[in-house]
Parts: sequence; C-alpha cells; structure tokens
Amino acid sequence: MKKIYLNPSEMPTQWFNLLSVIPQLAPPISPMTGKPATPEEMLALFPGPILEQEMSNQEFFDIPEEVLDILTIWRPTPVVRAERLEKALGTDCKIYFKNEGVSPAGSHKTNTAVAQAYYNKICGIKKLTTETGAGQWGSALSYATSLFDMALRVYIVKVSYFQKPYRKSFMNMFGAEVIPSPSDMTNAGRAELKRDPESNGSLGLAISEAVEEAAMNKDINYALGSVLNHVLLHQSIIGLEAKKQMEIGGDYPDMVFASCGGGSNFGGIASAFIKDKIEGKKVDCVAVEPLSCPTLTKGEFTFDYGDVAKMTPIMQMYTLGHDFMPPAIHAGGLRYHGDSPIVSKMYNEGIIDARSVGQLDVFKYGVMFAKTEGIVPAPESAHAIAGACNEALECDKRGEKKSLLFCLSGHGFFDMASYDAYFEGKLEDYEYPEEAIAQSLKGVPEVKF
Amino acid sequence: MKKIYLNPSEMPTQWFNLLSVIPQLAPPISPMTGKPATPEEMLALFPGPILEQEMSNQEFFDIPEEVLDILTIWRPTPVVRAERLEKALGTDCKIYFKNEGVSPAGSHKTNTAVAQAYYNKICGIKKLTTETGAGQWGSALSYATSLFDMALRVYIVKVSYFQKPYRKSFMNMFGAEVIPSPSDMTNAGRAELKRDPESNGSLGLAISEAVEEAAMNKDINYALGSVLNHVLLHQSIIGLEAKKQMEIGGDYPDMVFASCGGGSNFGGIASAFIKDKIEGKKVDCVAVEPLSCPTLTKGEFTFDYGDVAKMTPIMQMYTLGHDFMPPAIHAGGLRYHGDSPIVSKMYNEGIIDARSVGQLDVFKYGVMFAKTEGIVPAPESAHAIAGACNEALECDKRGEKKSLLFCLSGHGFFDMASYDAYFEGKLEDYEYPEEAIAQSLKGVPEVKF
Repeated sequence: MKKIYLNPSEMPTQWFNLLSVIPQLAPPISPMTGKPATPEEMLALFPGPILEQEMSNQEFFDIPEEVLDILTIWRPTPVVRAERLEKALGTDCKIYFKNEGVSPAGSHKTNTAVAQAYYNKICGIKKLTTETGAGQWGSALSYATSLFDMALRVYIVKVSYFQKPYRKSFMNMFGAEVIPSPSDMTNAGRAELKRDPESNGSLGLAISEAVEEAAMNKDINYALGSVLNHVLLHQSIIGLEAKKQMEIGGDYPDMVFASCGGGSNFGGIASAFIKDKIEGKKVDCVAVEPLSCPTLTKGEFTFDYGDVAKMTPIMQMYTLGHDFMPPAIHAGGLRYHGDSPIVSKMYNEGIIDARSVGQLDVFKYGVMFAKTEGIVPAPESAHAIAGACNEALECDKRGEKKSLLFCLSGHGFFDMASYDAYFEGKLEDYEYPEEAIAQSLKGVPEVKF
Repeated sequence: MKKIYLNPSEMPTQWFNLLSVIPQLAPPISPMTGKPATPEEMLALFPGPILEQEMSNQEFFDIPEEVLDILTIWRPTPVVRAERLEKALGTDCKIYFKNEGVSPAGSHKTNTAVAQAYYNKICGIKKLTTETGAGQWGSALSYATSLFDMALRVYIVKVSYFQKPYRKSFMNMFGAEVIPSPSDMTNAGRAELKRDPESNGSLGLAISEAVEEAAMNKDINYALGSVLNHVLLHQSIIGLEAKKQMEIGGDYPDMVFASCGGGSNFGGIASAFIKDKIEGKKVDCVAVEPLSCPTLTKGEFTFDYGDVAKMTPIMQMYTLGHDFMPPAIHAGGLRYHGDSPIVSKMYNEGIIDARSVGQLDVFKYGVMFAKTEGIVPAPESAHAIAGACNEALECDKRGEKKSLLFCLSGHGFFDMASYDAYFEGKLEDYEYPEEAIAQSLKGVPEVKF
C-alpha cells in the first residue's frame, strides 16, 4: 500500500512522555539566582498544566477532548511509501515518510500550538506572545489562537519580516499581530534600537522581547514552539500514529530520521520508537542537522542559556554557545545554538544518533523528493529527506535492505525563494570552523547547584 | 464522518464524458476558413488521442495505467464535511467540500495536466507550450511534463511574472522554462513589443505566443488547461469520486457548487451529478463566477474567438466578447471572456444554473473557511465557498435543510498578496457595466456554416 491512512477514530488519545523512559534530566536553572528555577518563576510565563507536563515523569497524558477535536481537522496525517523516490535513487531500501505538512499552518508545529493555546485559554489567559524566525511557529500559533479567540503578538526577526512577506500575511489572516523585532514595545527592543537603529534583529532578541512582554503582564503568557519537554510531549502524536501506520503497512522501521533544530520534530516522530528501543527492540533514531549549525555533532553537552540576552532558564543541553551566530542558511528553523534537553540527554546517553548534512545535499534531495513524490518540502524537512536518502545509498553499497522512515515536518510553499537561490547556484556547503565553535563555547555559564 | 477517504483501489478507472448525455455542440470553426475546423488543422496543436476525446460522444474513456498510477500520488482526494464552517455560519444545512488543493501543483489542474502530457508523450512529442495567467495551470503542466521527461515552455503574462515570483520558482523547480509574455520569441510577441516596448502583456497574447510556437514546430504541441471538451473529460474524476464519497457518507447533494472561469473545475465536479440529473434525479449544479467577469450570467450564447488575437478556433459559447477586458480582480483564473462550450450548452439548455458573487463576499467567506476548516483557499476556489455559504443562509431563511457540496479547486498559499489586499481594504465589488458588455459583444464574429 502506498499511502497508509488512519481513521480519526484510530488517532491516539494520549501523548507519550519521553521523560518516563529516559534517564532523569538536570533541572532548568534560573538565570537570576543560579539555582534550579522555581515553579513560581516559570508560572510568570506558562500556565499550570503546561508546567506540570514540563516537569512530570508520568508515562501518558490524556489529550483533552477539545484538542483532539481540533487535531482531527488534519490528523491523523498519512504515512506514505515513497516508491517513486526509491526508484529515482535506485535503492533496494524501503523509504516511508510521515507527512506533517498537511496541517493548517503547514508543519508539525500546529500540534503543540493547539495544545498550548488550549491550556492557556482554560487558565484564563487572554493573550500570548511568541517569536518566530522562519515563520512556521508563528503561523501555527496564529492558527491555534484564532480557534480559541485569543490575542497573539508575534515578534518576527526583522530580516524575516521583509524576506518572507507571505508568512506575515498568513499570520495576519488568523488575527495575529506581527511585529518586526527589534521593536519599540519592549525594553530589550528599545535598547537594541538605541544601539543600532538599523538593526536586523535576531531570534535571540525576538525571544527576549516576547518573554519580556509576557513576564511583565499577568494576563499574558509566552509560548515556545520547540526545545521544551511539553512541546516534545505534544509532538509524540506523530510517532504514535506513525508506528500504528507502519504496523498496518506490515513493516517496522530499521531507522527513523527527522531534522533537528530545537528538537520537537525529531522528538515527536522518534518518541514511540525510542520507547521500543529502550525495551530492547532494534531501531535507530537519527537526528539530522545542518553542517553549518552542528549542535549535536559538534557542540558540547553542558549548561547554557536558551537565548542571546540570557533571559531564559539555563538548561543542560548540547550547545554551540548562546553567542553562536550561524550563517544565514535557508532553513531558518534549524539555526539554533542549543537543542532540546530531552534530545540532548538521549544523544549523550547513546540512545539516539545524529548526523549533519550540507545545504547542497539538502536541496538536491529536496528537489528529487518534489519531483517524485509531488510535495515541495520545507528546507528544514529536506534535511530529513537527505539523511534518509544518503543512508539508503550507503545501505545499497553494503548490500543491506533497510526500512527507513522520515518525518516530512512541513511543506515549502512559503520557501520558494530558497529554491531559487539553489537553482541560481547561490548556495554552498558551509562547515562551521571548529575554532569558532570552541570560541563561542567559552561563553557558556558555569553552573553549580 | 468528517473526512471521507477512498482507497486508491476505489479510484475511478474511467473518465465520464459529458458529451454523451447533453445535446450536441456546434463544431469549432476555423479562424482561417470560417468553416468547421478540420482534424488536420487541430493536429498541428494536439495529439490524436486528445483530439479523439475532444470530438467523441463515447460515454466512458479508460484512464491509461500510467496516468492512473500518477494520479494515485495524491488521489483519491478527500471529501470533507465542513462542520466548523456550518457552525460559524449557524446554518442547518450540511456543507461538504471536495479538496482538490492536495495535488502536487495545488489545484485540480494537475488532473488534466498529467493526462495531456501522457498522450503527447506517447505520440512522440518532445516539448509542450502553454500560457499561464494566475499560474495554477503552468504549475500543473510543469509538474506533469517533468514526470514524462518532456520540455515545457510557459508563456506567463508579464505582469504576473513580476507579481507572483514564487509561481515562477515552482515551475522552474519542475524544469519548465518560464518566459514573460510578450517575448521576442514569436511573431506575436515581437509585434506587441514593437507596438509597446513596455507592454505588460495579456492572457490573450500569451495564448497567441504559445499557439504560434506549437503551430510552427512539428515536434512541439500546445496544451490548454480549461475550456475544451477533453479537459472537462479528464476532470470528471473529481465528480465521480465525490459521488462515491457522498454515498459512503450516507448523503447525496441537493446542490453542487464550483467556481467557473474556463469551466473545467465546474464541469469536473458536476459531471457525475449532471448525468444523474438528466436521468431524472433532483440535483442542482451551480457555476459561480465573479461579478466582474459575468460570462454566463451576463454574456451572450454565440460564436466567438478563444483569444484576443483571433488565432484559436471560433466556438459557440457564452462570451463577453473576446475584446472584453475584465478588471484586475484577485482571481486571475476566472478572468476569461468565454466559457467551456460544454458548460455553455448546459447553461443554455437549462441543465445547470449560474450565479455571480462579488469579491468582498469571496474573501469574507474565504477567510471564514480558512479559520474554520484550516485551509487557505485560492481566491478562485473561494467563489465556490461564497456560493455555497450564501445558499446555506438563504436555505435557513426559507426553513430548508439542504446538503451542499462544493469543489475546493485549490489552495491559496501562492495568493497571500490578495488576502493582504483584502485586509488592507483595497478590494471592492465591481459589477461590469452592461453597456460595456454590449459594446465588447459587438466584436464577436458572424459565423455561417
């Protein structure tokens, strides 16, 4: 069977919590006190139920009825056997993909956006703030808040605001206010504008602006689209569905690939399979990251800030240093100096694997995928495609016939300019110099608790 | 059930030919001789099997295996009960939609693009030419020709080339050459550039350029994305699937709505239901067109050219006159002076109904649909949404509870600029003055044969 659907009635009704099966994480450290962050500090930004999910080792959480009902607008998402891609590669491996690009906002981000909006809504929060770089997260949260009649302000990195005008249009359509960052609405923004009135902004600064607004207002909370434990929890539905679908298709993946920036897409599809692995089943989960932002493959497992302005909790994770400035590759969603503490822990413990790929492979296989499977992938998602395709070709050399599953985290209809750059020969593989990484890693804080 | 899927194994394997159930059409007239066009004249542009489909009254045509195999990449497409839209409207009617936006190129156009590329390929044709205005058709044919390793040149109206850069990117990704029209590659283009070096072009001129190149080269054929009988034949799969899906859902539509420009989307979904209607079943099929380009509702049923430059066959159809210049509404796919001869004949015979809607309703209901059903519709498709929503509200006033089905012909991810214009208050309802229509209708040719 080429396409494997589940009925809405077969959709998982519980999220699976990776924290229940992996070694315990170090606690998040308050940037103010240098000690483990207290629930009170976190409650200024997040509602109670989200904090509970963030901290709990409970194995399953029931998905609320209201959230389930919304998820069925586009879920379950299909698993597709990529037979035409296999043929184009000439591989003897089987390649499957889980298509999260069918969601209203076009990526897996919508799964957690709906859950986060819901929990904030039932806790009486009227407005959320967030930041967005590539625009996928801002789009997803705009859609989700519109469903719950909540206000949303999205601080978008100024350079993206002008480079991706249609992302802004999408967010506006769903009622979100989209503010180019740095803005004059926050202390952080005003300080940057004073320093450089022409500043293009950065994701780190946009985070600072969104966090500041939420921290200063009782009725306003902040929402983050990746990295944190509760985000990975909400994304576990991807892996739970995919495992069921592979069973229906009469197969089980030898390897699971997903692109990895903050880690929610990877953690989402890997979740169900990592549980199997820990219980003794043979399956390899591979996080695929850009050669130019090699957090897992070249970073250090240590404590670091989540943002440039040092406003977020300090977390134990793989990091390139919070001052790390990745080059402007065309996969904005993967340009993050750090990584999910859960994903980092799993990599550090040898539970998962990680690989990096260069942009030229990413776009080569992205275009091959579009031509064979008929879906233009987001450049972020094309990292997973490249990871799976490279592995298939290596398997062929070794005479192995594996089943490979990857997560197509989103479509690329808003990213056509990056494909233009590829076809115009403007892209190159950029490997971040080890000395520069060593230099930015000098900035990580010393933590004792 | 909210979403009604068919398995690929349940996909129709034959196309249904409306010509087999409706009164006979007048023949197309040669613009050179003023007499019915000969097969030889048509063969300069189209391959034999396409011409056969264009002329035949045969009820069903087998879909070739190779075409079926490609169609299953995205087909069968889902039928969805739009419960959230119903709730937002507060209607007692049931509203269903058939989602053709899931195709690789984002619209129903892909259905006929694949078939046309296939038939040209097996007839030894190496290259196709076509024109595109809004970009949906050029995108679909680019995808289809890439599957068959054929070359494609798309003449795109110059103003669209610059206004919709990502449409060009999409076509380039699939290997098509995209030429702003007027170009210096054809006599028609050079003549226009001589007349006005700064010319923005028009769809009529782009057609003339594409037809000229195909007519002058034995190995090159021309492909058209709507209007003609074989295009409606290939689109019949929409209606055949939808009818099966409504049966599975335990319902039958009282009314079927589709937007209507050249008529292929409307003819496609209506086909199976029109057969039922002719056989005595009660079902109303409604073509929805823009108030600003009211071909069926305000045009005349007569013989007219398909293009401004009078190079195409003269066909009996509803027309506003080939010199009609519709205003630059944000639904480029519906700005055509004429209409499918099949759709025109059905309207003239009272088999179908037609209504026009203004832009403000179109965008109002388009946004409502995006917010409730999670899919940003193409402005063209939003005409069908508006048609169905207006009918639902009218039914409520009359105390009727109808089942309404509409075709969502495509997604609007490449049309965000038009939504911006709507939210910025730049759009208005424009009703084309009757005197101006009467004036442009004076230009239709006199035909005697």
